[in-house]
Amino acid sequence: MERYRRIEGLQMNEEHLWCLKENGYEAGLHKHYEGLFTQGNGYMHARGSFEEGCSDAPQDEEYLRFPDNVTLEKPRHPKSKQGTFIPGIVARHPLLKEEIVNLPYMLGLELRSAGESLDMDRSRISGYRRWLDLRDGSLHRTLIWETAEGMQLQCTFERYISMADTHLCIQRIQVEVLAGEGRLEAAASLRGDVRTNGMNHFDSVVPTAEVGGSLSLKTLTEQGNRIFMHSALEASEAVIWQEENSQVTAALRGEFAVQTGDRLTVSKLTAVTTDRDMEEGEAGSRALAQLSRAREIGWDQLYERHAACWKSKWQGADILIKGDDLAQLNVRASLYHLLRANAPEDARVAICAKGYAGEAYFGRYFWDTEINLLPFYLHTNPQAARNLLLFRYNTLDGARRNAQNYGYRGARYAWESSLSGDEQCANWQYADHEIHITADIVYALYHYVRATGDEDFLEHYGIDILVETARYWCDRVDWNREGVGELLGVMGPDEYLPFTRNNAFTNRMVKFSLEQTIACLDSLQGSKPDSYAAAAERLNILPEERELFRHTAEKLRLPYDSRTDIVPQSDDFASYADLDFDSIWTDRSRPFGHFISQERNYRSKALKQADVLELMLLFPHEFSREQLKAAYDYYEPITTHDSSLSVAVHGIVASWLNQPKAAANFLQRVMDIDLSLEKKGAAEGIHIANCGGLWQLIVYGLAGLKSAMWSKDIKLEPRLPKGWTKLSFQLAWQGERYRITIHPDAHAVHKLEGRGYVAGTTL
Amino acid sequence: MERYRRIEGLQMNEEHLWCLKENGYEAGLHKHYEGLFTQGNGYMHARGSFEEGCSDAPQDEEYLRFPDNVTLEKPRHPKSKQGTFIPGIVARHPLLKEEIVNLPYMLGLELRSAGESLDMDRSRISGYRRWLDLRDGSLHRTLIWETAEGMQLQCTFERYISMADTHLCIQRIQVEVLAGEGRLEAAASLRGDVRTNGMNHFDSVVPTAEVGGSLSLKTLTEQGNRIFMHSALEASEAVIWQEENSQVTAALRGEFAVQTGDRLTVSKLTAVTTDRDMEEGEAGSRALAQLSRAREIGWDQLYERHAACWKSKWQGADILIKGDDLAQLNVRASLYHLLRANAPEDARVAICAKGYAGEAYFGRYFWDTEINLLPFYLHTNPQAARNLLLFRYNTLDGARRNAQNYGYRGARYAWESSLSGDEQCANWQYADHEIHITADIVYALYHYVRATGDEDFLEHYGIDILVETARYWCDRVDWNREGVGELLGVMGPDEYLPFTRNNAFTNRMVKFSLEQTIACLDSLQGSKPDSYAAAAERLNILPEERELFRHTAEKLRLPYDSRTDIVPQSDDFASYADLDFDSIWTDRSRPFGHFISQERNYRSKALKQADVLELMLLFPHEFSREQLKAAYDYYEPITTHDSSLSVAVHGIVASWLNQPKAAANFLQRVMDIDLSLEKKGAAEGIHIANCGGLWQLIVYGLAGLKSAMWSKDIKLEPRLPKGWTKLSFQLAWQGERYRITIHPDAHAVHKLEGRGYVAGTTL
Repeated sequence: MERYRRIEGLQMNEEHLWCLKENGYEAGLHKHYEGLFTQGNGYMHARGSFEEGCSDAPQDEEYLRFPDNVTLEKPRHPKSKQGTFIPGIVARHPLLKEEIVNLPYMLGLELRSAGESLDMDRSRISGYRRWLDLRDGSLHRTLIWETAEGMQLQCTFERYISMADTHLCIQRIQVEVLAGEGRLEAAASLRGDVRTNGMNHFDSVVPTAEVGGSLSLKTLTEQGNRIFMHSALEASEAVIWQEENSQVTAALRGEFAVQTGDRLTVSKLTAVTTDRDMEEGEAGSRALAQLSRAREIGWDQLYERHAACWKSKWQGADILIKGDDLAQLNVRASLYHLLRANAPEDARVAICAKGYAGEAYFGRYFWDTEINLLPFYLHTNPQAARNLLLFRYNTLDGARRNAQNYGYRGARYAWESSLSGDEQCANWQYADHEIHITADIVYALYHYVRATGDEDFLEHYGIDILVETARYWCDRVDWNREGVGELLGVMGPDEYLPFTRNNAFTNRMVKFSLEQTIACLDSLQGSKPDSYAAAAERLNILPEERELFRHTAEKLRLPYDSRTDIVPQSDDFASYADLDFDSIWTDRSRPFGHFISQERNYRSKALKQADVLELMLLFPHEFSREQLKAAYDYYEPITTHDSSLSVAVHGIVASWLNQPKAAANFLQRVMDIDLSLEKKGAAEGIHIANCGGLWQLIVYGLAGLKSAMWSKDIKLEPRLPKGWTKLSFQLAWQGERYRITIHPDAHAVHKLEGRGYVAGTTL
Repeated sequence: MERYRRIEGLQMNEEHLWCLKENGYEAGLHKHYEGLFTQGNGYMHARGSFEEGCSDAPQDEEYLRFPDNVTLEKPRHPKSKQGTFIPGIVARHPLLKEEIVNLPYMLGLELRSAGESLDMDRSRISGYRRWLDLRDGSLHRTLIWETAEGMQLQCTFERYISMADTHLCIQRIQVEVLAGEGRLEAAASLRGDVRTNGMNHFDSVVPTAEVGGSLSLKTLTEQGNRIFMHSALEASEAVIWQEENSQVTAALRGEFAVQTGDRLTVSKLTAVTTDRDMEEGEAGSRALAQLSRAREIGWDQLYERHAACWKSKWQGADILIKGDDLAQLNVRASLYHLLRANAPEDARVAICAKGYAGEAYFGRYFWDTEINLLPFYLHTNPQAARNLLLFRYNTLDGARRNAQNYGYRGARYAWESSLSGDEQCANWQYADHEIHITADIVYALYHYVRATGDEDFLEHYGIDILVETARYWCDRVDWNREGVGELLGVMGPDEYLPFTRNNAFTNRMVKFSLEQTIACLDSLQGSKPDSYAAAAERLNILPEERELFRHTAEKLRLPYDSRTDIVPQSDDFASYADLDFDSIWTDRSRPFGHFISQERNYRSKALKQADVLELMLLFPHEFSREQLKAAYDYYEPITTHDSSLSVAVHGIVASWLNQPKAAANFLQRVMDIDLSLEKKGAAEGIHIANCGGLWQLIVYGLAGLKSAMWSKDIKLEPRLPKGWTKLSFQLAWQGERYRITIHPDAHAVHKLEGRGYVAGTTL
């Protein structure tokens, strides 16, 4: 781990293109770095907190978080919130419904000397540096600590969560005594005093510590899940570990006598398992087995295996940018989180809105998955994309329950999905009215099929989603007196207008969804009558029902046509109030929503995010360049981008419209969302949809790739930003892999040999 | 109290026209009767619970009540919820905001024999009867208890809350031993184990009991209010009281040896005071002084004073109906609660939505006060009406804060007002969008002035309300591109359409409000320039501001005109979905809202309550009879009457339209709201607005009185229901009192001599 392994094609002097650095500690930025430096491997994730914690930042504060607008609410824990998340381990919040549980803190490692603890805020510290190496997801901290007794200690903390052995977390402290002598203490812990959004979700936490150097914490959640954490400690010097458990914390400390020139290493290897894991066998014994196997493998080999996995992931996903080192690093930061947050083998979970890097969005699943994230996985790791769709298939029963709860037939996907697909959104205006999610999933289904050619997926999984959601739509449509189908009371992607009539985006997506349902049934009946018959029986499809799907698809209103000058966001959009933005939004560095009451916002023409532009992004061939430009010119000035889903879309459209300055500006804003030190945007977690948006902005916008949804072939229309001399990335496409290479005046598509894949199997 | 005192003009054989009776105990009806039998005197109120409580109905259950649709949510405490309320004593609920505190239970009185307690569910009971005498608000219960040991005891419970000595509650048990002998125990208590909507709002409760026969309970609420309850016990036989306090309950018990033929009487006299009372002096000593003064006065005199107050109240307020005894009784039940719930001398409080007879609506103030309740008080006790408007004047600062919180100038009255006028509604769709309340208050202000002639009220109080609310309206109006003022994003009275455009009711009320503001300023400037100058300085009225008021009043859109066939509820009303009511609303005995999701409801043409009809009721001269009929014919079939504010309005309109059957049907439905044993509508408290609605239905509808808002003279157009041979009531009008007498074929208005009043003073 000390030496970074070479990744194919990379040089050792490329740290500045791969390492996110924090130079000097600043308390006000700590929470931001906790989010940004989140490590993980799909199975588990841990925020980038200090091993020893933070002074004045208790993690077990109890309070009642209320349902509120997450974009606008003031988060708790201004200084630090540790986070340890295993997708799938959830509990009930009395007001907010299902939330992912913040698990016991497994990273505890402290240094003490003569009663003084190393503390980033209170100790005398110099030479502080911290960095996350994106190549292998390892986190490093180095500093010089001058103790009260006058010792000068060079301290280095390193840790990673293994991408190969997904239950393992590996940590090490190294201390070099630069001057002085005295007694040094190292303490390791597994801490159960953790609350999730102020709630205690642990029914019991049982700590044990053995003086041989092992710690364990057994946690039973109120939902009945069992979490096992076992740690093994090792030190470079002989030591007698002493237990210092508290009620819910397992802890050991060891004391060392040191003098100038001494080097001391303390390592902590932690295995984490749960009773929800896919592996067979009792979780507690699996954790112990993992640990002993890891110790057999040894530290170097553990790292080798881990680094090899990261290397493989980067090979398929990396985007190479020449001529703009900062963009290169920032893009990789996004890719890193996209690679980290996904568990490509576990279709019982998807990717939560904060990328498992914070509590803010409760670990739930939104439309982000299908519209913002999916394209990245489609074209870098189709197996992962398939898994995301399988998650929706697996939660179809939840969607059926949602439909029923609202009084409809069929399946209605949740605006905020739990593990089971049941609606969790505590704010009814979104849960009730932001219905496009159900069509977004069908769009994504076809996006997957068309990008991969995996037609079988429709036959085995997709058809159930299609038929059940079509039933919901037919119930949801109202018929006006002219016999036109309408969708009333709808919140489109723009969440600042909750009750619109015939939202253009939503209606188009629903029409698409119904049309594909009909096409799928027709085609299956023609090509595979047996398979159709089985589906018809399983889903109880009636002939008149297919007629209803067809009729609804045909008669559903689209509030625009090819002659429309400006495509209206909804039928009633013109009737909302115009705003004088300059007099209201007096500080554009803060969200617009802070400057206006929700009441006024809900009746005014102020878009939270792209809505018509999102429609044009998903159906680009249906709009003329003039319509695109008119929409951009009309909507962009009244769009607040208060949602992180908005800027990337605008960047793509600006790029399509050949407005390089605007595109570059949006590109910068996309990167700033999680990375800007002024915004501290990662404090509550990673805006993972925006990471997917950045990939789309580069691939669809700057490289000008025509979406696989609408093109069988790879078609590019690149427009590189000023200064970029090269842009290159791999692309999985129709079962093959390609390398795209773009220079300012030329581009090339090379098919990669020997790296083909078959959809439905892992690369 | 044993013998009802004669009320002038009443005969002793009129009990059936004055007594609400419960014949036989039924556990499932108990909560309903608790609400219906609520006693009180404006200062304090107590639900009609059994003195000994109810088995299996703990009053100290703790839970978190969520913000929900009060009409539709399932209330807790299915069997019994005791309630002791003093308007003004409130606390904070973490989710629901300010709520009136359910105080310690002061009514505790139990009978026991040989370890057995008298228990309505478990004891062997016969001859149970209970009745509330509306004449004096006294509650009576009589029954025969056959104890396990074989005694037969005729037990009678009586109690009242004094209307004359408002801090006193008087109770008595009488036991006659019909057969057997043994030991009988009487226990009296003041119980602090009470929760409000599941919350404990008591910081401390200190019980004391003295064996001389006195109990006390000192309660400190978390808001810092101190409540003192002191009781003195008396028994007809010598007794040594024994203390049986628990942690938060003061209790004494006394044992009596009894035998056949014995009669035992135990009395409990309780004084209740708080540090918020208007009287001077320390609350604790006041309570003790009240108590000793009451004992000096003696039981008979206490009752005389009390009954005289009720008599006086009834003289101004009673409605006499001949030919329909049930209607007579039911109307009096409503009048009783209107008289009870109001505190005509305390303008720091108004009348809460449940008439201080339950926790459901948190003791808050709605538009009901101005639109539904005010007319009754205007014409029976103008001083009380004035007080209700003073409450709005006193809370103008709260309304200013509300406006500011929403980003507006001026004053915006709360949809659900706290004591201070600050918005308490936890459901934003109402709080944000149901803005007509602010104009309703101005309408009520003018209604008061025009009904009483008290023009000075405008000069001293009204003008501040007018100017400040006009400022809010000018900020709230949006201007469309044609220069027309609009009110967007509005929920009108119909709460099933939360986001409409230019709600006809709201826009008309706002226009009225602005017009009156201008008129008031113009008139004051002309007639009392000094007073105008003072107001202009106090309120910082600028000349251009008056111009803005005028311009806004002129240009505000009314979505109808005299040629409109059907007055639209709002500009966008036609675009909502039509519903097939019969297929959805399969059980019309339950609210429509139970059969449809809020999501669907919010986009459909299903009115919760009168909206356009309410407009026509308030501005009757602006609509032709044809328009009224068209509106009634169009809206009535799509009105669900899920709100209790709806039926009375429809009854009035049906009466105006000369549809006697429909009017009679609505009259019955109005009376059923709190009185029907099938609906059990009083369980959570009294629908006090509907009580006011019943008064309006009789006076405006059946008697056909033209509103004082639009007529200087008393004008009647009676249409008596079938079978009614006489309808008679008093009417306070322009500083005088009149008696209205209506027979099927004739009616008369008599001015009453010597009963004139001057507005602003108590009758």
